[in-house]
Amino acid sequence: MPEDLSRLLSPRSVAVVGASSRPGSVAGEILRNIVRCDYHGVIYPVNPKYETVEGLPCYASVAALPDEVDLAVLAINKDLVLPVVEQCGEMGIVNLVIITAGFKESGKEGIEREERLCDLIARYSLNVVGPNCMGIINSAPAVSLNASFSRWFPKSGEIAFVSQSGSLGETVLEFFEGMYLGVSQFVNLGNRAGLSENDFLTHLATDDQIRLIFLYLESLADPVAFRQLVERIAHTKPVVVLKAGRTEAGQAAVASHTGSLATSDVIVDAFLTQSGAIRVSSIREALTVLGAAKWGAIPNGRRTVIMTNAGGAGIITADACEHVGIEVPLLPFAAKEKLASFLPPEAGLGNPIDMIATAGSSDYERTLRVSLSAADSAIVIFRPPLVLKESPEAVAEGILRVAKENPDKPVLVCTLSHSSNMSAFKKRLQEEKIPVYTMPETAVDALASLCRVGDLQRGRRLPDRVSDIAIDRGRAKRVIEAVQQEGRSSLTFAEGAEVLSAYGIEVCSFAYVRDVQEALVFAREARFPLVAKIDAPGLFHRFELGAVLTGIANEEQLRRAVCRLEELVVSQGLRSGRILLQPTLSGRELILGMERDPSFGPVLMFGIGGTLVEALKDVSFGVAPLSIDQAERMIRSIRAFPLLEAFRGQPSVDIGALADTLHRLGEMSLDLAMIAEIDLNPFIAGEQSAAVDILIKL
Amino acid sequence: MPEDLSRLLSPRSVAVVGASSRPGSVAGEILRNIVRCDYHGVIYPVNPKYETVEGLPCYASVAALPDEVDLAVLAINKDLVLPVVEQCGEMGIVNLVIITAGFKESGKEGIEREERLCDLIARYSLNVVGPNCMGIINSAPAVSLNASFSRWFPKSGEIAFVSQSGSLGETVLEFFEGMYLGVSQFVNLGNRAGLSENDFLTHLATDDQIRLIFLYLESLADPVAFRQLVERIAHTKPVVVLKAGRTEAGQAAVASHTGSLATSDVIVDAFLTQSGAIRVSSIREALTVLGAAKWGAIPNGRRTVIMTNAGGAGIITADACEHVGIEVPLLPFAAKEKLASFLPPEAGLGNPIDMIATAGSSDYERTLRVSLSAADSAIVIFRPPLVLKESPEAVAEGILRVAKENPDKPVLVCTLSHSSNMSAFKKRLQEEKIPVYTMPETAVDALASLCRVGDLQRGRRLPDRVSDIAIDRGRAKRVIEAVQQEGRSSLTFAEGAEVLSAYGIEVCSFAYVRDVQEALVFAREARFPLVAKIDAPGLFHRFELGAVLTGIANEEQLRRAVCRLEELVVSQGLRSGRILLQPTLSGRELILGMERDPSFGPVLMFGIGGTLVEALKDVSFGVAPLSIDQAERMIRSIRAFPLLEAFRGQPSVDIGALADTLHRLGEMSLDLAMIAEIDLNPFIAGEQSAAVDILIKL
Repeated sequence: MPEDLSRLLSPRSVAVVGASSRPGSVAGEILRNIVRCDYHGVIYPVNPKYETVEGLPCYASVAALPDEVDLAVLAINKDLVLPVVEQCGEMGIVNLVIITAGFKESGKEGIEREERLCDLIARYSLNVVGPNCMGIINSAPAVSLNASFSRWFPKSGEIAFVSQSGSLGETVLEFFEGMYLGVSQFVNLGNRAGLSENDFLTHLATDDQIRLIFLYLESLADPVAFRQLVERIAHTKPVVVLKAGRTEAGQAAVASHTGSLATSDVIVDAFLTQSGAIRVSSIREALTVLGAAKWGAIPNGRRTVIMTNAGGAGIITADACEHVGIEVPLLPFAAKEKLASFLPPEAGLGNPIDMIATAGSSDYERTLRVSLSAADSAIVIFRPPLVLKESPEAVAEGILRVAKENPDKPVLVCTLSHSSNMSAFKKRLQEEKIPVYTMPETAVDALASLCRVGDLQRGRRLPDRVSDIAIDRGRAKRVIEAVQQEGRSSLTFAEGAEVLSAYGIEVCSFAYVRDVQEALVFAREARFPLVAKIDAPGLFHRFELGAVLTGIANEEQLRRAVCRLEELVVSQGLRSGRILLQPTLSGRELILGMERDPSFGPVLMFGIGGTLVEALKDVSFGVAPLSIDQAERMIRSIRAFPLLEAFRGQPSVDIGALADTLHRLGEMSLDLAMIAEIDLNPFIAGEQSAAVDILIKL
Repeated sequence: MPEDLSRLLSPRSVAVVGASSRPGSVAGEILRNIVRCDYHGVIYPVNPKYETVEGLPCYASVAALPDEVDLAVLAINKDLVLPVVEQCGEMGIVNLVIITAGFKESGKEGIEREERLCDLIARYSLNVVGPNCMGIINSAPAVSLNASFSRWFPKSGEIAFVSQSGSLGETVLEFFEGMYLGVSQFVNLGNRAGLSENDFLTHLATDDQIRLIFLYLESLADPVAFRQLVERIAHTKPVVVLKAGRTEAGQAAVASHTGSLATSDVIVDAFLTQSGAIRVSSIREALTVLGAAKWGAIPNGRRTVIMTNAGGAGIITADACEHVGIEVPLLPFAAKEKLASFLPPEAGLGNPIDMIATAGSSDYERTLRVSLSAADSAIVIFRPPLVLKESPEAVAEGILRVAKENPDKPVLVCTLSHSSNMSAFKKRLQEEKIPVYTMPETAVDALASLCRVGDLQRGRRLPDRVSDIAIDRGRAKRVIEAVQQEGRSSLTFAEGAEVLSAYGIEVCSFAYVRDVQEALVFAREARFPLVAKIDAPGLFHRFELGAVLTGIANEEQLRRAVCRLEELVVSQGLRSGRILLQPTLSGRELILGMERDPSFGPVLMFGIGGTLVEALKDVSFGVAPLSIDQAERMIRSIRAFPLLEAFRGQPSVDIGALADTLHRLGEMSLDLAMIAEIDLNPFIAGEQSAAVDILIKL
């Protein structure tokens, strides 16, 4: 377990091992960065070849250092790394940043080298960033350290940025600079031999200086731990994740029926959403989200008012809102009346409110006040007019007065212009944490991301609903263990039904029958039409085999069905095959499933059964543990969801009950790790909801 | 009909009516703009109040002008506009730009004023831009005229920009400036009392200086003319359209069954695509498309290779490609072998090709050559490395050599940096018309828009397929006229069947029967199961009424069905109701429909029948005339299209035949303007394809 990371990120002294004045030397570049950024602590260059580097006394080895050192940065030949790490361990230097490449990213020899490094990390309880990384940065004024070869040393601010990639990290730092986004802490994880994103999340959770966390990841070091951390952090600090590698991820898609509809990236999406992270899919989107979230107000809903002094821009903005799901509702009559009392008669009192080109500061102030009384946020377009009757700053002051009266309602301003006339206007608003955009679409994207943050934070305020009906874990476990002891890898229908029942999941009534006589007995209790099928472990494609007979309407048909299945059992050599009878349930035909993802664990799938799933791939995914609310969101997210609501005379499916079932399936998958795959296809949701077919593989 | 617009856009002399030196005067602003931009022609200020304005002799009235004037710009009190226009007409000044507002945009009085203006335009055959506009600009060096109050006078270039909105237009001009996009001609249409976008399209079609046309429109002045023009122009000059007003447009959605699934914006989308325009939905997207298309190469397909010296950026780029439908295929073995012969062993030879940070100009040149041999385009990421072994310009030269060898394959370069180190690199590439982007996502968006241009231009090379089977227009027309003479507003099934047959559209066989005896006769020819329904003009919801009985399996059931329908005819008082019998066709259940949009004319609808259409609103639209290819694209664009392909034992639907039917329905709708609405629901596509139910309203 890594120790506390405060000293790693805020060291009082740093040794740069490998430091030299040679141009092009990475260690030299790092040393120069540390000197250049006005680091507040003590710097020790370490290199046996030099007496001094950059005017600082240079030490021959880590062992020769005169004092305790909080952090050592290693940028040396790969063959020297392990001995130096060992020396550090012996010297009690526990915080290391290993820049050097040539580890697990580079073939067999490198993999072995990294394994030995891991041994050293464990032996000396080291906090190691890297290897194969760019380094770390802490630009907080009290530290001011650029222990990396990044050419950009960010302004300090409330963002922490943890990046798996170095070059991408440096790129984003450069863009942050252009966007006035302050980043106090930057960590490039590299190979993650020691510390991973999770260790830094743990640390950042308690760092009061950090209000926003941005992660660039190509893979997750430990998804389960990640989720627990993000669930805890995200309700106070938005965690924005740029998870790259969709294409690659697709290749890892699992191959079986349920899985063949999934791509891993869909699972990553479900996982990040459930965790409470805000996933972005491009650098531009990341910058927009971070830029919007760095300041205050998170809206309570998706209703916005657009006010403008330029008609066309208002329409474009309304279009953009519709595109991202932000509502642009009409104003209530009273609000319109109020606006009409001061805006000129040519003004448009719809939404967008077109205040026309003559609008001044008082129009902006009063219109914004009316707008915010009717909505959760406002987008204010102030295009510098041809004739400025007053200074743009006066307009800014008007906007600010209303924004201050409404601290929980974001106001986003849009200028449609880079013009230098507007710089004082922008500056004034930004000082007071009102974001200003040039393009209306960017303002809308920003508002949309604030809405996402709001949705997440509101969701977090309520405890996740979970089922309170008792689950009989022991009973389910005993069934599975018995199957394992028989050396089978799949359950019979009856066994599956018992496991499901132990978890409170309804199963359609059924009976095994040995002959026509027994079948007729069952038919007297259940009503026609009946379903007859062969149940045999390992018989997974019985429909294709003709081993499922539906719509059996009377005794004569039942007789024939049983005979046909009996013949099939013989002709197909299904020695353990038994004939199973069920009544016909009516309702919507659904598919519920579970597969185990190698890194995310149990992945639940939901879809509407029949041809739709196959043709439209219209299914949704969730990662266990899956709360009832998460399950409900999962159910609602399929495109065909309207088919589950009251429709053509059929009543609505009980979504709550269905969500509860998915939740229970998730619990079952977590409890019973021996289960590899579950397929309830169909699961009928109607007056009676129940699994009609059950496939459980171990 | 407006005259040739050359003199309007390239006048040898301009009169500015209303010109004054008074600060804040719009006419004064325009005059100053004309003076400031070094206009090559003669300028005549016109204002009875002044002797000189801006140092130029000022004339008391249009009548007092000493010479012929090619263009008059009117920025005067709205009450003076009509007399001055009349004066211009009398003086033979035919080209006018009317800046003044207070016309149809401002109430009853303004509407009347605009009507009188239209009369004058007609009387004197005037070319009028506006009223209520910002003016026009021609920045071509031979003219250099800013006859507008726009604060931005664009650099001349190959783009023409026609904007319905003035403020939006000025905004976009400012952004063009920031993007080095040259605009030779800018026109703000304003109210379009005289000239519309179509007149300028007609002119621009023949202007060899213009290679790209950009339109900002909130509505189309004349969609039919627009389509004919764009169809003609777009295969040589991309026409990019930012059509705003989605939300407003939605309100105009038609109310009937078919229409209720449509929003007008979906129709606009279909219309613009069919026309061959490139629709964009934001200013940012417009800038990206124009920026990409302003230079040369249009790709022949969607396969690209990404090459990078920074791994993470390559992954982000691949993700972005997948997102917009650009293929990132693996390289063939031979290409990989070639790359392995010169790239270092740490390089990644997938796609993206990760050349790692050490890659130099020769690596870029050779890798790009291999890449372009295997794909239609390349995205080249060159992030300035920490250690520059050679100048970035050397890398640029390497890229340029290969780009010149492949003039038909676009190469898009991405730097991931604003760094000034890269300005010579960028400049060198841009000089040779290789676009350079900072963000990889922008480069990908640009490539995607180039692919759209390519798709359109390739599509245009082939003549649109239309049906060659004879159509009997006269026969269809006679049926409709007979119905009209009877004063009915809807057709019986038999009448509808005749109209469809006249257009070569198959109809399911049917017979009217007066009693059970006749029904039994029909049953002997057609096979059971049968369908029986009541056919009565004006009975539109017969399914809900129980007036459609399906699955009639034998004579007994037929007897009962006929009796039941007979009773229904009586009980519902359907005096003209007749009983209609049909065989049951098997196949996919589809919906084909037509409604008439007030501005776009006949709009065709296609969808899969049954619950899917209602619940998922999964339908597509096309605007007549609809070629067979356009109809096929329309069919393929529904989400549920996979259900029409070979599926669960059913053979694929004959898409070509179905497209032909939609095409014929379009022709019928154009020929027979009396038809308001057509609904073929269901249309069965199977072994035999035919309309099973027919609703035609007049």
